[in-house]
Amino acid sequence: MIAIYPGSFDPITLGHLDIIERGVVLFEKVIVTVMYNPNKRPLFPVEKRIEQITKCTQHLPGVEVDSYKGLTVDYAKLRKAQVLLRGLRVLSDFEKELQMAHTNKTLAEDVQTIFLATNKEYSFLSSSTVKEIAQFGGSVSHMVPENVLRDLREYYR
Amino acid sequence: MIAIYPGSFDPITLGHLDIIERGVVLFEKVIVTVMYNPNKRPLFPVEKRIEQITKCTQHLPGVEVDSYKGLTVDYAKLRKAQVLLRGLRVLSDFEKELQMAHTNKTLAEDVQTIFLATNKEYSFLSSSTVKEIAQFGGSVSHMVPENVLRDLREYYR
Amino acid sequence: MIAIYPGSFDPITLGHLDIIERGVVLFEKVIVTVMYNPNKRPLFPVEKRIEQITKCTQHLPGVEVDSYKGLTVDYAKLRKAQVLLRGLRVLSDFEKELQMAHTNKTLAEDVQTIFLATNKEYSFLSSSTVKEIAQFGGSVSHMVPENVLRDLREYYR
Amino acid sequence: MIAIYPGSFDPITLGHLDIIERGVVLFEKVIVTVMYNPNKRPLFPVEKRIEQITKCTQHLPGVEVDSYKGLTVDYAKLRKAQVLLRGLRVLSDFEKELQMAHTNKTLAEDVQTIFLATNKEYSFLSSSTVKEIAQFGGSVSHMVPENVLRDLREYYR
Amino acid sequence: MIAIYPGSFDPITLGHLDIIERGVVLFEKVIVTVMYNPNKRPLFPVEKRIEQITKCTQHLPGVEVDSYKGLTVDYAKLRKAQVLLRGLRVLSDFEKELQMAHTNKTLAEDVQTIFLATNKEYSFLSSSTVKEIAQFGGSVSHMVPENVLRDLREYYR
Amino acid sequence: MIAIYPGSFDPITLGHLDIIERGVVLFEKVIVTVMYNPNKRPLFPVEKRIEQITKCTQHLPGVEVDSYKGLTVDYAKLRKAQVLLRGLRVLSDFEKELQMAHTNKTLAEDVQTIFLATNKEYSFLSSSTVKEIAQFGGSVSHMVPENVLRDLREYYR
Repeated sequence: MIAIYPGSFDPITLGHLDIIERGVVLFEKVIVTVMYNPNKRPLFPVEKRIEQITKCTQHLPGVEVDSYKGLTVDYAKLRKAQVLLRGLRVLSDFEKELQMAHTNKTLAEDVQTIFLATNKEYSFLSSSTVKEIAQFGGSVSHMVPENVLRDLREYYR
Repeated sequence: MIAIYPGSFDPITLGHLDIIERGVVLFEKVIVTVMYNPNKRPLFPVEKRIEQITKCTQHLPGVEVDSYKGLTVDYAKLRKAQVLLRGLRVLSDFEKELQMAHTNKTLAEDVQTIFLATNKEYSFLSSSTVKEIAQFGGSVSHMVPENVLRDLREYYR
Repeated sequence: MIAIYPGSFDPITLGHLDIIERGVVLFEKVIVTVMYNPNKRPLFPVEKRIEQITKCTQHLPGVEVDSYKGLTVDYAKLRKAQVLLRGLRVLSDFEKELQMAHTNKTLAEDVQTIFLATNKEYSFLSSSTVKEIAQFGGSVSHMVPENVLRDLREYYR
Repeated sequence: MIAIYPGSFDPITLGHLDIIERGVVLFEKVIVTVMYNPNKRPLFPVEKRIEQITKCTQHLPGVEVDSYKGLTVDYAKLRKAQVLLRGLRVLSDFEKELQMAHTNKTLAEDVQTIFLATNKEYSFLSSSTVKEIAQFGGSVSHMVPENVLRDLREYYR
Repeated sequence: MIAIYPGSFDPITLGHLDIIERGVVLFEKVIVTVMYNPNKRPLFPVEKRIEQITKCTQHLPGVEVDSYKGLTVDYAKLRKAQVLLRGLRVLSDFEKELQMAHTNKTLAEDVQTIFLATNKEYSFLSSSTVKEIAQFGGSVSHMVPENVLRDLREYYR
Repeated sequence: MIAIYPGSFDPITLGHLDIIERGVVLFEKVIVTVMYNPNKRPLFPVEKRIEQITKCTQHLPGVEVDSYKGLTVDYAKLRKAQVLLRGLRVLSDFEKELQMAHTNKTLAEDVQTIFLATNKEYSFLSSSTVKEIAQFGGSVSHMVPENVLRDLREYYR
C-alpha cells in the first residue's frame, strides 16, 4: 500500500520526521510530497525543501520525495496511492484536517485519510514556530533535523 | 420580522443557500448583505457577488440582496432589522461568531444574533475551500449553485 | 411561530431566563418545557421546576410552561412548534448542541433548532454550578431568580 | 498487518461499521474487540454485543470479533497487532483519543494508534445517542445495522 | 503571598507534583488542599491522600497539606490566601477551569486564579487515567510518585 | 519577583489593562513590553504604543513600559524576570498560548509562564476587534482607555 504524506515542509521539522518514520512501518512506500501553494510565500524554494527532506530521510527505506502543484487527491490518483497520511498535534489541527479529509473524500471516494498523533515531544512544534524563533537567533536544534538547522543558520545569518 | 444575513459570499456556497432557505421560513424578509471589507482582496467584485446571490435565490420569496460598507449593526439599524442570521458549521466558527455576537450586542442592544446549524452535508464547506479546489481544476459542483459554478469555471479558465 | 425551549431547568437560572426573555421577542409563543429524563436524579421534582419557571416568567407575555417525557422532536410535533430554542454559552455546549440539532433534524426534518448566544454575564453559569455552590452555603443570588434562591436555601438548610 | 478496533460497541452503530469497512481495506485483519469495562453498566451483555458485531460484519473478509477484559495495549500484544484503529467524529473525541493514544504509547512503544475520520453522515452519531432515542421509541433505523435495530426494539418493547 | 492548590488528588500524580514544584518558586507558601466532594466516591480516603501528598512533597520548602469540605473561595479567605493555583493540561481543562475562575471571582473578588501550563510530559495525565491503567495491572510508574505507586499496587493487589 | 507582560498592544485595550492591574498585585514589578514583530504591519508605531500604555498605567505602581525586538525569553533573561504574564480569554487563545509557553520552556527552563483569566467583561475583546469597529466609526469607548480612544478617533478621522 502506497501512502502520500503531503505538506508545505517549509522547513521539515522533527515532528514531520516522526510521522514519516512511523509511516514507513505501516506502508510499503511513503511519498513525502511538497505541495506547491501559489498563494504562500515560502522561506525555502521547493527544490531546497525537497533536498532537505531527502537528506534527513535517507536512512529510511520506502521513502520517496516529490513535489506537486495541484490538488492532493489528483496527485494521489496519479501515484495510485490509496492513503493520505497526516499528523495531528493539537485541536486546531484537527478541525482543519477533518475538513480537508471530508472535502478530499467528496473529490476521491477511494483515497483514505489516515491520521497519526504526533509524538507528544513535538505536539507544539510547527514550521512557523521554527521560523519565528530562528529569525531572532533562538536555538531550534531540538526542533529540526541537523541539515535544516544548517540551512536556517545560513538563511538568517 | 426582518433578518439580515451578512457575509462576504465570495462566492456564495450551497451552505449559505441552505441557511437562506431556512431563514425565509423563519422570517418575513431575509436581507442577504454582501459586506464590503476594505482589508480583503475578493475573488469576485461586490456587484458580481450580488448578481450571483440574486440568481440562485430567485426561487425564494422574501429574499432581498444588498451590499454595505460599514458595521453590520449600523446596517441592521438602517434597515430596521431586529435579527442577524448566522450559520454555524464547526467549532472554530463558533468562537469567532460568539465574539461577533457579543461585540455587536455592546454596539446595538436590540439587534439579536440568531444561529442556525448548517446542514451536516455542508458542515465542512467554506468559500475558501471552494476557491482552493477550483483554482486547481477540481470539481466543486457539489459545493456551489450552478451559476456560481459557471462563474468559477470562467474565472479559472 | 411557536418555539419550544426544552431543558432540565434543575433549577432555572438567570441564563435560562435571559434566553426566554429574548425568545418572546422573536416568537409568538415560547413553551418552556421541562424534559423528564429517567436516567438523571434531579434536585427538584418536575412539578417544583414547573412552578419555579412559572413564577419567574409571569412578567413575560407569550410564555407557557410544560413538561414532557419523551423525545423533544415528538413534543415539538405534538405542539405544532416549528422551532427548538437553545442557548449557547461555551464551546463544549456547542458540540453537544450541534449533535442534538443534527440528530433532531434526522428525526423531524421540519423542526428547526435556533441558537441564541447566552448573555456574556451568564456565559459561565449552569444549573450544576448553582447546585455545587449552594450546597456549601455559597451565595448564588446573582445566578438564579429570587424564588429559586428561596427554594435552594430551604433545600440546603 | 493486524489492527485492533477496540470499543464498547453498546451497541455497534453504522458509524462503527463505516470504520470497520474502511479498516479491512487497509489491513489484513481487523479484530473488533469488545472491551469489558467493569465500571460501566452496559445495555447489552458482552456476548450479545459480540453476536451483534459478528452478524453485521459477516459480509466483510478479514474481520474477527473478540472481547477482552484489560488494557487495550496488553490485548494488542497478545494478538501481535501493531495497530490500534480509532474513529474520530468530533473535537471532543479528539482530545480523549489523543490522550489515550499518548498514554498507550507510554505503555507499548511499538503499537501505533491510527485514526480514521468517521464518515460525515455519522459524525454526530454515538451509541449513547442511539440509546437515548430508542428508549423513547424514536426511529434509529438510519443509525444502526438492521440486526441491532431488532435487538433495540425488543429491548425497549 | 500564599497560594492554595485545591484538588481531589485521588491520587496525586507527577503532573500535580510538577505544578507544586513550580508553585513554591513563585509563592511563599503553597497549601495543597484536598477538597472533600460529597458527590464523588474516591479511591483513597481523604486522610490517605493527605499522607500521599505529604510524603512526596517533603523535599519542598513552603508546602503545607490540608483538606477542606466547602467552597474553595471560603477556604482561601479562611487561610488568607490571595491566589488559587491551577494547572492547565488540555483544552477541555481550560473551559472548566475558566468557568471555575470566573465563578470564584463573583464569589470572592480579591482571590485570583493563576494558571500554570502543566509540563508537556504530563499533559495527557490525569488521576482517572492512572486508576484506569492500574486497575488492569498496567504500569503507572512514570505517572505517579513512588509512594503512590506502592499504595496503588497494594490497593489493586 | 519581576514579571514581563509581552504583546503587540496595537492598541492596548481594557482587557490588557485588566491583566496589568491584576499583575501588579501579584508581582513587585510588571514590565509591559511591546514586542516588535517585523512580519506585521501595526496601526500605531512602537513609540506611540509605548506612550499609550504609559499614559493609561500611570496610576499603577510597579509598572514599567518597554519595547523589544527579539525572542520574549531572551528579553526575560535580559531583565532577570522569572515570569511571563499572559491573559487567557477564549479557547483559541489557550492553544496558541500553551504552544508558546511550552516552546518558551524549551528555550529557557527557568522562566515560567503564568496565565490569568481575562475579566469576563473583556473576554471577547481584542485589539483587532477594536480596529475593525473603529475604522467604520463604531464606538469603542467601552473597549479601550480614554487616551487610546482619542488616538483612534484621530487616526480614523
